Amino acid sequence: MDTKREKLVRESFARQGLMTTIGAKITSIAAGQLEIHFPFSPALTQQNGFIHAGAVASVMDSACGYAAMTVAPDNHNVLSVEFKVNLLAPAAGESFVVRSAVKRAGKTLTIVTADAFALKENGANEKEKPIATMLATMINRPE
Amino acid sequence: MDTKREKLVRESFARQGLMTTIGAKITSIAAGQLEIHFPFSPALTQQNGFIHAGAVASVMDSACGYAAMTVAPDNHNVLSVEFKVNLLAPAAGESFVVRSAVKRAGKTLTIVTADAFALKENGANEKEKPIATMLATMINRPE
Amino acid sequence: MDTKREKLVRESFARQGLMTTIGAKITSIAAGQLEIHFPFSPALTQQNGFIHAGAVASVMDSACGYAAMTVAPDNHNVLSVEFKVNLLAPAAGESFVVRSAVKRAGKTLTIVTADAFALKENGANEKEKPIATMLATMINRPE
Amino acid sequence: MDTKREKLVRESFARQGLMTTIGAKITSIAAGQLEIHFPFSPALTQQNGFIHAGAVASVMDSACGYAAMTVAPDNHNVLSVEFKVNLLAPAAGESFVVRSAVKRAGKTLTIVTADAFALKENGANEKEKPIATMLATMINRPE
Repeated sequence: MDTKREKLVRESFARQGLMTTIGAKITSIAAGQLEIHFPFSPALTQQNGFIHAGAVASVMDSACGYAAMTVAPDNHNVLSVEFKVNLLAPAAGESFVVRSAVKRAGKTLTIVTADAFALKENGANEKEKPIATMLATMINRPE
Repeated sequence: MDTKREKLVRESFARQGLMTTIGAKITSIAAGQLEIHFPFSPALTQQNGFIHAGAVASVMDSACGYAAMTVAPDNHNVLSVEFKVNLLAPAAGESFVVRSAVKRAGKTLTIVTADAFALKENGANEKEKPIATMLATMINRPE
Repeated sequence: MDTKREKLVRESFARQGLMTTIGAKITSIAAGQLEIHFPFSPALTQQNGFIHAGAVASVMDSACGYAAMTVAPDNHNVLSVEFKVNLLAPAAGESFVVRSAVKRAGKTLTIVTADAFALKENGANEKEKPIATMLATMINRPE
Repeated sequence: MDTKREKLVRESFARQGLMTTIGAKITSIAAGQLEIHFPFSPALTQQNGFIHAGAVASVMDSACGYAAMTVAPDNHNVLSVEFKVNLLAPAAGESFVVRSAVKRAGKTLTIVTADAFALKENGANEKEKPIATMLATMINRPE
């Protein structure tokens, strides 16, 4: 991916107030792929103290949108049309990672999947546990 | 709906750190139905300054879950299995309202829909504009 | 709805080989709304002898697509982007009815919902039982 | 996978009238995975002569359900709770293949994905083109 496009993605992500509130950071970016990490916070919980499905979905939605943006036509904004998320396990962990991947990039619509994992220290190693999966539709809009 | 059940719903909602972060408040509650309001905040935005689809979806998910809880069997916790949201218009407004309604309440699974609207002052009146719609599946789990 | 548009919808529906196979017929049509009936058939069943969720979804998808077509710009074809269906009860009945309604009609995308019901003779009356609900995205494509 | 379970899956699939109507055949089966082929037929088309999204979704739904059944507890029936399908390209081809894979198998719910491809003769080789992707929820019910 060219550096200009990467810069546009990172600048747009930095403008998302919700991602700042969540503490989400892009940790990897490539053509059609994005990785975002975010930490546990009591400000993001549901009633049992786990991360709220909506907070996980928020990061997954951003991960899908910016993965679509890496492969969008020039001078286009990417907006979410719809997304569907299945919750696989309680979002219990010290931090979380979301990885998105473009399934099909069209001129108008881009279909993207994302998977979310809880991370736990496990001695020297970090262990990933699947917590959610998303299938989303993004649309390219001329700026 | 009996007052004991309503109390359980309100207490569980109050424990959701994310709803506090969003500033979401239950404004109406009845058997199979919930209404939640939340204000605009720069802490919840996407790249263009509108409310992030994930923040809207978070409130819709809580609205669906607690609508399901109003009709769940006694001594059961309600968890999200999955939800699907279509974004209908940018979430631009001074505040927002989400209304959920149970479509089918089963012993194990409950299907719930929700609609989200942006609210704008319009002289003496407040005008509602549809911004998103959700179709969700909730599961009843013995406590 | 003007009669020319209705004629286009009915002609396009008549070209759908799958709707003929299912025995589906448009029983009502209006701007943004469609109703389709289809009979029980052993050729459409799942393993327990009820109508297969996919057959119900097929009729719902057509109902959503043609509801979108009633309000699409002139000289545009309507195609399914995606649909999500929740199954509410076994599709057991003598016949079935699907009703769709446009939720939001945009220049490019149209969001449509549909509900499916099983019909049973009940003395003099016919009784409707909800069996499925759909939330779908359609796209308008220039012909 | 043990042969008794495989036999149960194949017998249940054989009872699905819709799969016979579509001409769908299981071509591969393993723990958590299923492959189904079906041929083009004018009886399954939409208005432009391609396979109707509902016919593709029907086979994907069966593929997801039986993939879930391969890993379900003994003496349980598997039913579809909901499924979401994104259409990626027109279903134009001489035949089609659907591959499903269990994402998470729970005691009650199983999350399954499926991908559908159009097959075209291409000299000595057959070429696969992605046409649809599904994310589905299945439920295990005691018989």
